[in-house]
Amino acid sequence: MPFVLCGNNYGKSRVRVLKVTRHPDRHDLAEIAVNVQFEGDFDAVHTAGDNRAVLPTDTMKNTVNAQAKAWSGEQIEDFACQLIGHFLGDNRQVAQVRIEIAQSQWIRMDGHAFVRGSEEKRTTQVAGTRGGVEIQSGIENLVVLRTAGSGFEGYKKDRYTTLKETSDRILATALTANWTYRHSEAAFGPCWQRAREAILKTFAERDSPSAQQTAYHMGEAVLAAVPDIAEIRLSLPNKHCLPIDLTPFGMENTNEIFVPTEEPHGLIEVSLRR
Amino acid sequence: MPFVLCGNNYGKSRVRVLKVTRHPDRHDLAEIAVNVQFEGDFDAVHTAGDNRAVLPTDTMKNTVNAQAKAWSGEQIEDFACQLIGHFLGDNRQVAQVRIEIAQSQWIRMDGHAFVRGSEEKRTTQVAGTRGGVEIQSGIENLVVLRTAGSGFEGYKKDRYTTLKETSDRILATALTANWTYRHSEAAFGPCWQRAREAILKTFAERDSPSAQQTAYHMGEAVLAAVPDIAEIRLSLPNKHCLPIDLTPFGMENTNEIFVPTEEPHGLIEVSLRR
Amino acid sequence: MPFVLCGNNYGKSRVRVLKVTRHPDRHDLAEIAVNVQFEGDFDAVHTAGDNRAVLPTDTMKNTVNAQAKAWSGEQIEDFACQLIGHFLGDNRQVAQVRIEIAQSQWIRMDGHAFVRGSEEKRTTQVAGTRGGVEIQSGIENLVVLRTAGSGFEGYKKDRYTTLKETSDRILATALTANWTYRHSEAAFGPCWQRAREAILKTFAERDSPSAQQTAYHMGEAVLAAVPDIAEIRLSLPNKHCLPIDLTPFGMENTNEIFVPTEEPHGLIEVSLRR
Amino acid sequence: MPFVLCGNNYGKSRVRVLKVTRHPDRHDLAEIAVNVQFEGDFDAVHTAGDNRAVLPTDTMKNTVNAQAKAWSGEQIEDFACQLIGHFLGDNRQVAQVRIEIAQSQWIRMDGHAFVRGSEEKRTTQVAGTRGGVEIQSGIENLVVLRTAGSGFEGYKKDRYTTLKETSDRILATALTANWTYRHSEAAFGPCWQRAREAILKTFAERDSPSAQQTAYHMGEAVLAAVPDIAEIRLSLPNKHCLPIDLTPFGMENTNEIFVPTEEPHGLIEVSLRR
Repeated sequence: MPFVLCGNNYGKSRVRVLKVTRHPDRHDLAEIAVNVQFEGDFDAVHTAGDNRAVLPTDTMKNTVNAQAKAWSGEQIEDFACQLIGHFLGDNRQVAQVRIEIAQSQWIRMDGHAFVRGSEEKRTTQVAGTRGGVEIQSGIENLVVLRTAGSGFEGYKKDRYTTLKETSDRILATALTANWTYRHSEAAFGPCWQRAREAILKTFAERDSPSAQQTAYHMGEAVLAAVPDIAEIRLSLPNKHCLPIDLTPFGMENTNEIFVPTEEPHGLIEVSLRR
Repeated sequence: MPFVLCGNNYGKSRVRVLKVTRHPDRHDLAEIAVNVQFEGDFDAVHTAGDNRAVLPTDTMKNTVNAQAKAWSGEQIEDFACQLIGHFLGDNRQVAQVRIEIAQSQWIRMDGHAFVRGSEEKRTTQVAGTRGGVEIQSGIENLVVLRTAGSGFEGYKKDRYTTLKETSDRILATALTANWTYRHSEAAFGPCWQRAREAILKTFAERDSPSAQQTAYHMGEAVLAAVPDIAEIRLSLPNKHCLPIDLTPFGMENTNEIFVPTEEPHGLIEVSLRR
Repeated sequence: MPFVLCGNNYGKSRVRVLKVTRHPDRHDLAEIAVNVQFEGDFDAVHTAGDNRAVLPTDTMKNTVNAQAKAWSGEQIEDFACQLIGHFLGDNRQVAQVRIEIAQSQWIRMDGHAFVRGSEEKRTTQVAGTRGGVEIQSGIENLVVLRTAGSGFEGYKKDRYTTLKETSDRILATALTANWTYRHSEAAFGPCWQRAREAILKTFAERDSPSAQQTAYHMGEAVLAAVPDIAEIRLSLPNKHCLPIDLTPFGMENTNEIFVPTEEPHGLIEVSLRR
Repeated sequence: MPFVLCGNNYGKSRVRVLKVTRHPDRHDLAEIAVNVQFEGDFDAVHTAGDNRAVLPTDTMKNTVNAQAKAWSGEQIEDFACQLIGHFLGDNRQVAQVRIEIAQSQWIRMDGHAFVRGSEEKRTTQVAGTRGGVEIQSGIENLVVLRTAGSGFEGYKKDRYTTLKETSDRILATALTANWTYRHSEAAFGPCWQRAREAILKTFAERDSPSAQQTAYHMGEAVLAAVPDIAEIRLSLPNKHCLPIDLTPFGMENTNEIFVPTEEPHGLIEVSLRR
């Protein structure tokens, strides 16, 4: 046959698990969505319809559920590594297992009741082979907005430029960050917390001449705050809040009234490493 | 012509406004989405194509933007009443103006920076005629979950019943509440706060033999806590978290591992008044 | 107790069913989502936590699944009536059953393969009591657009008006229609087809001086085409496609380049009856 | 400073354009969403807050709008190349421009009216440097379902396997395909049409022992049908339609009643090249 199978992977996505850890005085709650992906020796599945090597994705889902019982319910990175250990141990035909986990936010009301937090997620992506694991963790959809200390001036103009320069605009984004740990023994919880705080503090406190420099400053701040992080990638959609022209109505808009828009949006991406 | 035009209304939906109120030491932020709907003498628009009575929906949008400047940025009920006053005053042909406002949650980080809260909204719907206004306010998408003190037993069985009775289940919902104020001079902010707290306290503290009784108890608690509320309607989707059967894997699931589901979902609705 | 339970209902939403009818030469496919709602004598459930009258919403889901086997897979109105007959027959405590069904679009490729159609749905809402049923059917999300024969002129202006009058604009909508049948023995399939065709033909062929008159003409056309329909309600969001100003770039936009927008949008609603 | 800026890019996403091409007898319609991304010499923007090299993303949006006027409205690949030519020509500081375009489906009703098709998109991603362009095109969200000729048997079992083998299941997917053209002079429209037909024909006509082999067969069929395609990548979420167990109700489900589910879902990915 003249065509080459040059890549393949398969797995199960959106395996949702809610784990309740029942302490005497309180319950802890972890809500996660897990993706599992296998790479390995699966050519015959594709070319010959021979399914003997295929662990069904339904079994992957069952495995996530059953393995969740042994997990502490604490660090998602630990659960990802636990799953990788299980899958690689039981499946000779698999060369690489990739686990992605996104954790939803619940805020404790009392010992047994919780209210939903924002749609920000704590995330991890762990790729494991028999040679070891690479752990990336991060944040998805951290939505922040500031009303002062942000401008955009001195940029290139051409015949299609209509944007006005401004020293005072709203800066809003729904940030995604992914960082790579230098080793698999980092203290994932405290590292995540410090990285998030460094991002928020940078956003709130450093003046922004562009979303680009703000993204870069965030990366610097995370690398400075968390020695266990080797590299970080930040993705900042620029969720434009446009000042509304009130002059047709005989009024002046002194940066008070804006329209938040969903599309189009800017998209700024930056990677930093030590 | 043998057909009767028996109802019509028109307006603009999803007019989004972000209002920044610039104090010397800090900025306040209000993000709202406004719907405007007119009813009145518009038969000729439909039957004869005569547009003279139509205030364009684009003008409605401009009006919301321009009027937002005079609004304090505080109570959405006040802004709805302000818009109604304007529209009824300027448009003889309009008999009723309905304004709906949903406010998004932003949490202050410092004087000029904010982080997004949950997807819960504070809402109001105000219907105004030249005879007065009726003000309903409420909450949309208040997502809560409790892991103890909730059961469902003693219900009717028939040949299609497979559900197991349980004295210990997860109860989770994304609550919507709408209440009617007894008059238009209520203290909307404190009333909203007390109503929300009554709902949360009931959810967290009262045992739940059914979502129905929990909804009813919430209604009672709100009416008890806020004398200015005449009537309340609650809508509770039952967002099922199903315990996963681990017995095929030789394990017992002692209410630890659940799968959160989106569909199908229960839907419980209840109205209470004084 | 000083508060009155003045209304309640409960049920199951988003019960999804895919029914395959297996003919010798081909399979037929029906994909539906069913909502069930009960009203009746449920006060003690709310006020006393007495669940004896409650048929669980899980049982409702099972019932929809089991009853789907006996359904022909053809008219959703028939399935709604079948469910109502079952629920009212078995549940003395229920005064009214409301069934809503939305059917997704699949286009046949051959005897056993299908490709998804548009996100338009065929819908029905049937309310049944021991006195009879009321059947409403309709269309959800019929998205149409025309590039000629639509204008908007001669409307009211005020100090907030900036919209330019135009005799040539794009008209686009995602229409919802709901009509009430005069009796429960209508030929639901052909009626639905003729109503839909009348709406499309009106949209494509009649000039539009406003979305309002287009909505009205659609209603007239449906009532004229389908004698079994007593009343119709149409809801037309005006999905604005705004012409882009190219003059800053030294170009003229002769109604060629538009930006489709999601928000804000107009919303036009109209009801007609015989 | 001890940290290295190791990557960056920026641009504008979701620039939506509706282009009407006005022929004497009819209008043609193209609705697209365009993403623009620049890579190049932007280090000073990030590290020094020097914006001189930054063409604002707002200007990118204006450019897409203005350039859309000169585009024929036919092949999205041509428009992507046109934009790349413009951006590279005017921006010495840019090393690579990436353009992504997704085209929505409209079905002609008559000369000037259109009804929305399915949510399937025709897509292209073109990466251009001063050395040339690489053109990938494809399909997003092609939703198909077959009710016969699909099974899943002979797979690996372990202690977590509960899935039953079956020779007769529903196979449903929302396919994404991306193929790379061998050169930039391909006949993009006919190639896209033939590739899509090859995918559909394979899905409908070839028996499926696994989603994996079906994906592989689709890739083979596309490469066989379109000589100008060098490589293809297919991504098939397995949108499970689960047979419902009716035995608790004394009924047998002979592959007639299924529940379509959104999560979890399988995900099968495969790449083939000549």
